[in-house]
Amino acid sequence: MLPYFENRRSCRVFADRRVDLGLVETLLESAAHAPTTGNMQLYSVIITSDDAGRRALAPAHFNQPATQAPVLLTFCADFRRFSRWCILSGADPGYDNLQGFMTALLDTVIFAQQFVTLAEMEGLGTCYLGTTTYNAPQIAEALHLPQLVVPVTTIALGWPQGEGEDAGRLPARAYIHHGAYADPTDAEVLDLYAEKEARPDSRRFVEENGKKSLAQVFTDVRYTRQAMEHFSGVLADALRSAGFKI
Amino acid sequence: MLPYFENRRSCRVFADRRVDLGLVETLLESAAHAPTTGNMQLYSVIITSDDAGRRALAPAHFNQPATQAPVLLTFCADFRRFSRWCILSGADPGYDNLQGFMTALLDTVIFAQQFVTLAEMEGLGTCYLGTTTYNAPQIAEALHLPQLVVPVTTIALGWPQGEGEDAGRLPARAYIHHGAYADPTDAEVLDLYAEKEARPDSRRFVEENGKKSLAQVFTDVRYTRQAMEHFSGVLADALRSAGFKI
Repeated sequence: MLPYFENRRSCRVFADRRVDLGLVETLLESAAHAPTTGNMQLYSVIITSDDAGRRALAPAHFNQPATQAPVLLTFCADFRRFSRWCILSGADPGYDNLQGFMTALLDTVIFAQQFVTLAEMEGLGTCYLGTTTYNAPQIAEALHLPQLVVPVTTIALGWPQGEGEDAGRLPARAYIHHGAYADPTDAEVLDLYAEKEARPDSRRFVEENGKKSLAQVFTDVRYTRQAMEHFSGVLADALRSAGFKI
Repeated sequence: MLPYFENRRSCRVFADRRVDLGLVETLLESAAHAPTTGNMQLYSVIITSDDAGRRALAPAHFNQPATQAPVLLTFCADFRRFSRWCILSGADPGYDNLQGFMTALLDTVIFAQQFVTLAEMEGLGTCYLGTTTYNAPQIAEALHLPQLVVPVTTIALGWPQGEGEDAGRLPARAYIHHGAYADPTDAEVLDLYAEKEARPDSRRFVEENGKKSLAQVFTDVRYTRQAMEHFSGVLADALRSAGFKI
């Protein structure tokens, strides 16, 4: 069992092969048995598989290659359905706030990851598009998301072409702590990332981008302060526009 | 495969049987192969298995029965380790903002859910403690969490006693949408929850709490507006105290 999970890889290149949407729905329905806060199931998923729909979403994900997948699944934190049921049942739903959003967010990500596991066990390839929280407003518009529904992650789905690359992982001592958080020394921090920095692909990234360290590839190219701060403002506005008081 | 996932249940009562921490670490290490944004692994997990440590955490989770589990795993969004590595590598990390927190949060929940799947496949019982975001400040203090580390969920872990209860789930049409969000009519909303409301345990909750509808059990007893709004403020303060500008 463990080797299966340890050998899993994200997939960014998909075969030209149709994905049966009946299978996708079956897998989603199985995934919905994942844990959910108070059994409220505070999520919705939008399946986009037609050309026009995928073309409308791709720019919100900066047209990254994985947007070419035959199916895009946009997972949304959704306190709308539950809140409407409350109102229709003579109850006052108080979920239009930060804890409401967080609760729905956790439910949604748990559901999405359970789907990823089931899809990968079926042989399908998946890739999370982390760009979902960057351009939430465009995605909300493209998918007609109403109040209290916020896109939090997208899964690109298809039959894989090729194997995907093994990205490697940090040593377990980096993220496992016993009893309390054990803050590493500076030397220990550097040691935790030493193997990652020594990988041929890491060294290539540094060279291709003309940087002095792998960390600079992250801070200066991939996830810059400017972009993170800009999209933080966009997301905060998107949450408020969706009716969450944060 | 699917029946296994569809029959899973959360576990709130644990057998008086020791959990091998070596097994827990092995499962965590396997779970760390779950997808992570840019392969940054923006999480830490604190393992608490001694009596004093579990006693210190239980009140932050309102002493709910699952806190009696032999092991509590506190999963934390952690942009600290990565940011320190950046600084030590001559790079400027710009992750102390809402997008930074969201990115780490998604990584953390994906990791936690992968662990749940692996633990349950091993026969262990698990229960998420959603109270983690309510009392983040106490948990941060008990676990000595430093800046840029925020607890986002806790998993109570142990060998199960008994079977756990099948909570049921909404029909798939409640949460699966094709092409765009299809907002149901009022009648359709009520229909989506009809089966849930008709369950004997639901009817018992309504009666025991002297309410008129199941929705009122959620809004007046379990997740009240007053509590959600109060703990929204607490969480916002906790995020700011941890150094995230939100």
